[in-house]
Amino acid sequence: MSPRRSAQAAAATREAILDTAVDRASRSGLESLTIGTLAESLGMSKAGVIGPFGSKEALQLAALEAAVATFRREVWEVAAGVAPGRARLEAIIAAWLDYLERGVFPGGCFLTAAAAEFDDRPGPVRDAVRDALRLWLDVLAAEVARARRAGELPREIDPKQAAFELNALAAGVNQALQLFGDERATERGRRAMRRAIGL
Amino acid sequence: MSPRRSAQAAAATREAILDTAVDRASRSGLESLTIGTLAESLGMSKAGVIGPFGSKEALQLAALEAAVATFRREVWEVAAGVAPGRARLEAIIAAWLDYLERGVFPGGCFLTAAAAEFDDRPGPVRDAVRDALRLWLDVLAAEVARARRAGELPREIDPKQAAFELNALAAGVNQALQLFGDERATERGRRAMRRAIGL
Repeated sequence: MSPRRSAQAAAATREAILDTAVDRASRSGLESLTIGTLAESLGMSKAGVIGPFGSKEALQLAALEAAVATFRREVWEVAAGVAPGRARLEAIIAAWLDYLERGVFPGGCFLTAAAAEFDDRPGPVRDAVRDALRLWLDVLAAEVARARRAGELPREIDPKQAAFELNALAAGVNQALQLFGDERATERGRRAMRRAIGL
Repeated sequence: MSPRRSAQAAAATREAILDTAVDRASRSGLESLTIGTLAESLGMSKAGVIGPFGSKEALQLAALEAAVATFRREVWEVAAGVAPGRARLEAIIAAWLDYLERGVFPGGCFLTAAAAEFDDRPGPVRDAVRDALRLWLDVLAAEVARARRAGELPREIDPKQAAFELNALAAGVNQALQLFGDERATERGRRAMRRAIGL
């Protein structure tokens, strides 16, 4: 292979490993990712799986980053095209619930699962989960604050409180869908999330 | 030992194993409970650890049952002494938040963690998690319905919707405490949980 072909092939291999890793981790958790199982389901050697990453932890971090990128694409980027303020908040809620309902990750929201799994395991993966969630809470609070300043939401809505509630309610929808297969979960979530921002 | 002493000793051993199992599972997940690690931290043989249960799955189920009993004692039984209706709902919210804030389980709410961990792993443990959560949601909805019938809550409060929201918000408090060490989590939770039932 030419150097370019070879770099493309390496990138494609890395992506195939990450796809499988994200899929498995969304079902069984990041911690239970084993190089052996990944190698088996990809028909690769263990060395071939670990090679592009260097360590299991680096692979976990890369899988988390890929999952965050998916969430950003499915939720944030859908809403970012809408005018800022109340309209964008409504678009975020709609895209977020749609993402949960479609089951973009086979095991439900990857970040919610990773947060529950790693909240008590200090280390780089926990830090990355915390930073990603913190960033999302900040984005939500900023959007609520903007809509409130524009007079589009009631004055008594507290942006950080609203961000906390939106995140908790979305995780509740995820749980109701994953654990109970509750068909009313999305509708319940929509109602509660709209109320959390005073709509 | 007399047969009675021996039965007492067996019960004490079983309880010691369960205490350690619940403690560890609340930190690292039920699935990552290994007989080897439990045996090591208890200074017992693997056979001694598995003996009282028979299988790892039976041990997981017993740990879950013990955790549910703790939740019932710390939250439900505290509130059950209060008059039914609105007063009891307020007592449930107070006891629930207190239980989360005190960190009764070192790794945060055991049931929330188990729900996230097992929502995608079909089998008896998932079924037991689902049944325990379903029972709690039903208790909450029944209490909301009672308070509503008594005219203590606004007519527009839907009991099942309220139960869904209370559960999601409590899990959100758990996440904020465990992942962010957010000191305002309990207060945010209280505010949102009271609003969920129209208070």
